[in-house]
Amino acid sequence: MYQEEVKKSERVRILISCQDQPGIVAAVSQLLFQNGGNIVQSDQHTTDPIGGMFFMRIEADIQDFELHKQKIAQDFQQLSERLNINWRMEQASKKKRLAIFVSKEDHCLLELLWQQKAGHLDAEFAIVVSNHRDIQGIVEEMGIPFHYVPVNSSNKKEMESLQIELIQKNNVDIIVLARYMQILSPEFTKTFPNQIINIHHSFLPAFIGANPYARAYYRGVKLIGATAHYVTDELDEGPIIEQDVQRVNHRDQLEDLKKIGKYIERTVLAQAVKWHVEDRVLTYGNKTIVFS
Amino acid sequence: MYQEEVKKSERVRILISCQDQPGIVAAVSQLLFQNGGNIVQSDQHTTDPIGGMFFMRIEADIQDFELHKQKIAQDFQQLSERLNINWRMEQASKKKRLAIFVSKEDHCLLELLWQQKAGHLDAEFAIVVSNHRDIQGIVEEMGIPFHYVPVNSSNKKEMESLQIELIQKNNVDIIVLARYMQILSPEFTKTFPNQIINIHHSFLPAFIGANPYARAYYRGVKLIGATAHYVTDELDEGPIIEQDVQRVNHRDQLEDLKKIGKYIERTVLAQAVKWHVEDRVLTYGNKTIVFS
Amino acid sequence: MYQEEVKKSERVRILISCQDQPGIVAAVSQLLFQNGGNIVQSDQHTTDPIGGMFFMRIEADIQDFELHKQKIAQDFQQLSERLNINWRMEQASKKKRLAIFVSKEDHCLLELLWQQKAGHLDAEFAIVVSNHRDIQGIVEEMGIPFHYVPVNSSNKKEMESLQIELIQKNNVDIIVLARYMQILSPEFTKTFPNQIINIHHSFLPAFIGANPYARAYYRGVKLIGATAHYVTDELDEGPIIEQDVQRVNHRDQLEDLKKIGKYIERTVLAQAVKWHVEDRVLTYGNKTIVFS
Amino acid sequence: MYQEEVKKSERVRILISCQDQPGIVAAVSQLLFQNGGNIVQSDQHTTDPIGGMFFMRIEADIQDFELHKQKIAQDFQQLSERLNINWRMEQASKKKRLAIFVSKEDHCLLELLWQQKAGHLDAEFAIVVSNHRDIQGIVEEMGIPFHYVPVNSSNKKEMESLQIELIQKNNVDIIVLARYMQILSPEFTKTFPNQIINIHHSFLPAFIGANPYARAYYRGVKLIGATAHYVTDELDEGPIIEQDVQRVNHRDQLEDLKKIGKYIERTVLAQAVKWHVEDRVLTYGNKTIVFS
Repeated sequence: MYQEEVKKSERVRILISCQDQPGIVAAVSQLLFQNGGNIVQSDQHTTDPIGGMFFMRIEADIQDFELHKQKIAQDFQQLSERLNINWRMEQASKKKRLAIFVSKEDHCLLELLWQQKAGHLDAEFAIVVSNHRDIQGIVEEMGIPFHYVPVNSSNKKEMESLQIELIQKNNVDIIVLARYMQILSPEFTKTFPNQIINIHHSFLPAFIGANPYARAYYRGVKLIGATAHYVTDELDEGPIIEQDVQRVNHRDQLEDLKKIGKYIERTVLAQAVKWHVEDRVLTYGNKTIVFS
Repeated sequence: MYQEEVKKSERVRILISCQDQPGIVAAVSQLLFQNGGNIVQSDQHTTDPIGGMFFMRIEADIQDFELHKQKIAQDFQQLSERLNINWRMEQASKKKRLAIFVSKEDHCLLELLWQQKAGHLDAEFAIVVSNHRDIQGIVEEMGIPFHYVPVNSSNKKEMESLQIELIQKNNVDIIVLARYMQILSPEFTKTFPNQIINIHHSFLPAFIGANPYARAYYRGVKLIGATAHYVTDELDEGPIIEQDVQRVNHRDQLEDLKKIGKYIERTVLAQAVKWHVEDRVLTYGNKTIVFS
Repeated sequence: MYQEEVKKSERVRILISCQDQPGIVAAVSQLLFQNGGNIVQSDQHTTDPIGGMFFMRIEADIQDFELHKQKIAQDFQQLSERLNINWRMEQASKKKRLAIFVSKEDHCLLELLWQQKAGHLDAEFAIVVSNHRDIQGIVEEMGIPFHYVPVNSSNKKEMESLQIELIQKNNVDIIVLARYMQILSPEFTKTFPNQIINIHHSFLPAFIGANPYARAYYRGVKLIGATAHYVTDELDEGPIIEQDVQRVNHRDQLEDLKKIGKYIERTVLAQAVKWHVEDRVLTYGNKTIVFS
Repeated sequence: MYQEEVKKSERVRILISCQDQPGIVAAVSQLLFQNGGNIVQSDQHTTDPIGGMFFMRIEADIQDFELHKQKIAQDFQQLSERLNINWRMEQASKKKRLAIFVSKEDHCLLELLWQQKAGHLDAEFAIVVSNHRDIQGIVEEMGIPFHYVPVNSSNKKEMESLQIELIQKNNVDIIVLARYMQILSPEFTKTFPNQIINIHHSFLPAFIGANPYARAYYRGVKLIGATAHYVTDELDEGPIIEQDVQRVNHRDQLEDLKKIGKYIERTVLAQAVKWHVEDRVLTYGNKTIVFS
């Protein structure tokens, strides 16, 4: 009996942010309980014990979701007015659709594909966009639409319009710059706030900008890293989602750093995209809250 | 105004376990809200989405705690009867009191002392108990009572009675076996369920029992580890709280493994004790839930 | 002038083992110097300062290798007789040929292919052998010969003969069990000593044998691991080449452990194979010396 | 017989650097063999296969060292003239003498003391120098001379003269800035090239200069680090010896970053000092070669 109801239930993720105040958890959990919801996971974070911001992520199973969903929305609307909260609700069954922007190198793209295939990454590959044709073959073999958009310094505006069109036409939820190597215009980045994830091949804020491996090599660092972050209109300054490093030593030449770096890039980017599509990342100022 | 109230407030940690059922979070958060509580952190875990166990840890600031605490206890008692939950409430300001059992080596004890001094470990050192006098000097210099209890195979029962007496007389909350090197009797371990933490010098369940480093050395492993666990009457089989490893290689002789191992032992044990005294560890069957 | 000679030079790897004795390094380095060799890297290991075994790996560039190689062999032969050393010389330009044995899962195979493509793994894929047809398509698309060998309990002997034939016909240097899931007969393993690398999905010697993830799950470990080792006729007891672990917690169900485990399996196996094909691994008793 | 000779033997470490050229290893190993030496470990590094620099570290046991040492020096002198090499020989039995410079915090100093006591760090503590009296008690209890040198902006020159006098009078080999918090003058740093090791509380080159934890906190990094480096007259720009990081998340406030950071600082500094006193670190340009 109970089991059957669970089968008809829908897993939702609810994200809430507001000024901290007593009673939020009580109000939200009461709301869900009254609408057939069973909370299976919940995380929260208060930036400061006094007068700070409050963030919450709840995973809940809602029985007979189709019957309840309108009422839930109404109740949240009321709560929102009373406690001045921001909220959104995502259905786990509705997979996020990805647009992957790549240049010539395929390692980050392949890792995302592998993670999806292995069941780690719950997302759909809507389109791959590239300014080179190098990996068109491998992408199309996998049944993913490939779009060649040969952006250069003189046609950037026009090409970005084309990219935006592709993104909108294909119902893309998130744009992943998988070693895309092009700097997007502020107009582009502002169109998709917190929806563009880039992988930068250094441990930010060290080595912002071009040629981070070469600069790491000449500085003689003992660890190299990669950083996945949301793209803003300040280069490599957006909110950091994930970073990781690997040990290197004096034997490693610049070429070795690049090889080892590829390994970090692909795992860090895949982790960040996974968290994003599972609605685990909230931004606050220039920082992220990751309910991992 | 608000700030003043916060100043009078008391930080509490509430731990709840029960059969999973809809409405628990709502009921508990409502209860706290009605008693002047503001939830600052909460974690929960359900072992299985259908028919599983539910565990929750809440940190909350209770305004005017002395006024509210009896009512909170009554309300939890009622809730407990209605939903069949187990619960306990701990005040963060009441520091747990530790009894450290050591033998000749001091590295685990020193790390615990350092962590406390550095503000990582929020606990009090009630007593140090040892079957050797090697580190009596260093312990007493730090103002901690040292008790020499020369346990051996023939006087174990008697010596354990003495130890239990010391523990009870000194209001000890938790017994830490910081490389104690003696096996406690089942009578002793049963007296303090989930209150004795041991550090075993291997990555359990590899190398249960004596001489784990020697066995790791002869097996040629590439990582060695240490495991902090609650002590039960089955040797090295109690619930694992924390484990970690370090890389070793063919150059490392048995003596090197022991040195590297000391480093892992002290950090793993300190982490486990820290989590325990912050009421972050729940046990379930032979496993732990660590709300870290 | 010097540069041209270097261009004609050949990179070789020389592996030496013998009873430790003064003068070995001098003799070997003198030998190479007199035969146009420039040592670019050398590593050595003595198991015990007194009366132990001595192991050395040298990378050297030999000028005009074709002219010198016979003389080098002769000189090593003489040295071998005088100092009772075992030696072998490998040319870096002669890539090792791999036979990959798989079952249904492709993650370890794909990682090896990716590492080769990315320039990390300097080897050739001679054949893929599988007892299932699940990944035939992907293998053949990459231009690697796929051999379906449907081994089962009743035809093992016959099928292993077929496998050995395939291995020998294709000049295979090393057999990689990339989650092959079948136990090889002692006859098979003895045919290829130190030439079969297996990935076991646990941190050996914990969880030897079947279902390591399930057993790790029920034991409640906080780290899971994988181990790459040479296969001997004792199950999961051969010399360990590489191991690694990842952190897990109480939220991770058995299925999560398997997913996280896949990630460790593929990186640990790829690392072990890389070291092997670069002639960096020597075995001694049941242990490995890895000149990484 | 052989064993007795070994007992009389002396362990030495020989460090060599020169332009790369064929025959160096042969010449050096021959030299040692002819003077009663048995090489027990050797490492080498060539910065570039063509025309690069060559670096070597050898550990050898020299029989009857007192008889041989003059001849070894003469032979190296000749070799040095012939092949234009730089060399030095250190006796393992002559422990390096440390001057530890500290301010108010003791965690780095305590770790160094613990590592020495545990047998990891083979060095002598000559003096502790501080601009505060906070840790005088703990230092003197351990029998180490404590010198209070109250440096400030107006008396820096004078105080540094006093420090240099203390260093020279006490036969100090290496100065360790264990969170000293003062910037040394160029005159001071030039007096002790590659002899001053500092611990900087960030992952250099990120967060050079003051308040790295605060800046890491506001940037929202997901890993924080520490860097041990030789001090040059450019702030935080000297050759890096060792770095490490630890994961942090959105829950960690600035105070938490500082606590976690202390842990990294003490282990990274201890590792760097250990390598230095074992003569494992060579510098080349602004980089280190660490034969670990």
